[in-house]
Amino acid sequence: MAVIEIRVELKKGVADPEGKNTRKTLEALGFEGIADVKSVKVFEVDMDLPADEAVKAGEEMCRKLLANPVIQNYSVTVR
Amino acid sequence: MAVIEIRVELKKGVADPEGKNTRKTLEALGFEGIADVKSVKVFEVDMDLPADEAVKAGEEMCRKLLANPVIQNYSVTVR
Repeated sequence: MAVIEIRVELKKGVADPEGKNTRKTLEALGFEGIADVKSVKVFEVDMDLPADEAVKAGEEMCRKLLANPVIQNYSVTVR
Repeated sequence: MAVIEIRVELKKGVADPEGKNTRKTLEALGFEGIADVKSVKVFEVDMDLPADEAVKAGEEMCRKLLANPVIQNYSVTVR
């Protein structure tokens, strides 16, 4: 039994319109000192597997479904 | 200069259709032993502020824009 955290984020250099618009809106609301906003997608997957197998399954999930390798990086960790 | 991580997730009991559909699709792809999939939204905000002020600003961002307090919880940590 393990809970893994799968983190999918855009590769460096890939446009992040969600982050960009979030930043613009935060600045419009008066927040100062923002150098960058990056949007990240996280999936918490609760699995009936030992931790090492759950991480391997999580990496396979990214390859098969959750991440687009052209524009995204992923990482899988145990919570 | 600090990078904060703002994590916005659904409160317990609130329907998570994205997590539910991700789970269904993973199972259709043959993944076994999945007990639950939860979707979480993360913003990485790079700020020109000391860590403690950046965290305070991050919490304010959640209250003003990033989180819906009716259905979501948020947490802000320094990376």
